[in-house]
Amino acid sequence: MKLKEKHPGKLFVLSGPSGAGKGTICKRLLEETEDLSLSVSMTTRQPRTGEIDGVSYFFTDVETFENHIAGGELLEFAKVYGNYYGTPKRAVLEKLTRGTDVILEIDMQGALKVKENYPDGVFIFILPPSMSELRKRLTGRGTESAEAIELRLGETFKELSYIEKYDYCVVNGVLEEAVARVKAIVIAEHSKVAFTAEELIASYKEEL
Amino acid sequence: MKLKEKHPGKLFVLSGPSGAGKGTICKRLLEETEDLSLSVSMTTRQPRTGEIDGVSYFFTDVETFENHIAGGELLEFAKVYGNYYGTPKRAVLEKLTRGTDVILEIDMQGALKVKENYPDGVFIFILPPSMSELRKRLTGRGTESAEAIELRLGETFKELSYIEKYDYCVVNGVLEEAVARVKAIVIAEHSKVAFTAEELIASYKEEL
Repeated sequence: MKLKEKHPGKLFVLSGPSGAGKGTICKRLLEETEDLSLSVSMTTRQPRTGEIDGVSYFFTDVETFENHIAGGELLEFAKVYGNYYGTPKRAVLEKLTRGTDVILEIDMQGALKVKENYPDGVFIFILPPSMSELRKRLTGRGTESAEAIELRLGETFKELSYIEKYDYCVVNGVLEEAVARVKAIVIAEHSKVAFTAEELIASYKEEL
Repeated sequence: MKLKEKHPGKLFVLSGPSGAGKGTICKRLLEETEDLSLSVSMTTRQPRTGEIDGVSYFFTDVETFENHIAGGELLEFAKVYGNYYGTPKRAVLEKLTRGTDVILEIDMQGALKVKENYPDGVFIFILPPSMSELRKRLTGRGTESAEAIELRLGETFKELSYIEKYDYCVVNGVLEEAVARVKAIVIAEHSKVAFTAEELIASYKEEL
């Protein structure tokens, strides 16, 4: 029987449209869950005041980053306003090997790339309760024009077709409920036969 | 997109060796979970004092029971000490269609038959924390000889190989933890993309 994954920790990828609240849920999970660690991104942008290397980001130069790309050492990466951002594979796998779960909050394109590179991850789609609520949240931020928001809503709806690539979807209407639901997913994933049974049976066998 | 199962409720099958505590967990879940209903078995044995038809069991005669078998109307059945016991499919499906989850507590052989007849069910294996703890629990019942218990432990260990057929396994060491874990599985299963996404996307579409 070969049921167990090679890592005793699990990677949970939280994704979904902007305004769904994945960042807030992620923060709450990290505060309230033991043995759960945030994935730290690597970037070529300059550190801002108060940012700590290895905690906020792994700060690096373009050459090193591009070597990481070439060497397949990133679970995903993107270039935003001329700066690279990516998820270093080794840092994630080290935590998983130590038995710590890792949480990664990322946009939908990034999540799909992570899935290609680490299909053993658990992919959770965070959704707003309705399109009108999403419109309200985006408007409330005051960072985009009404037109830009309508365009974004149209894009978001199209992106929903990627939901089939995910394992779970959680509607973030009431934050407490959404957090509880993601916590339940974390617990359930640790109870999966494919994840845990082999070790259990081995322990019984030793006793007999 | 055709993601959704045909039933808005889910069937949760709790199984595992005698002494693992599946009955206690099942009872607690029913007390503490809304929209969860116990599957009522059909039997040909005589009702005992206080047993209510349709609640304790569906009491029936041998001819009716055998017609149910012949008609494929049982998710599983067995004959114990000359009496038939089985799980009527229709009663389960009716609850699921109404959006009520159904829980079924059953031995391992029965669970595997249910899986053949209703693969959309969620199969949870309840395990004792160790073989020595299982021995202690069975001895504590005082219903079997030490020899019979050792035989049963050997059988149990063999039956553990069926664990691969299940979706989840939950170790019942501390009852509270085991109950919380099964509850988490129930919540997580309701968050599965395959279970819930189609309906969600339809509701967004209506808004656009």
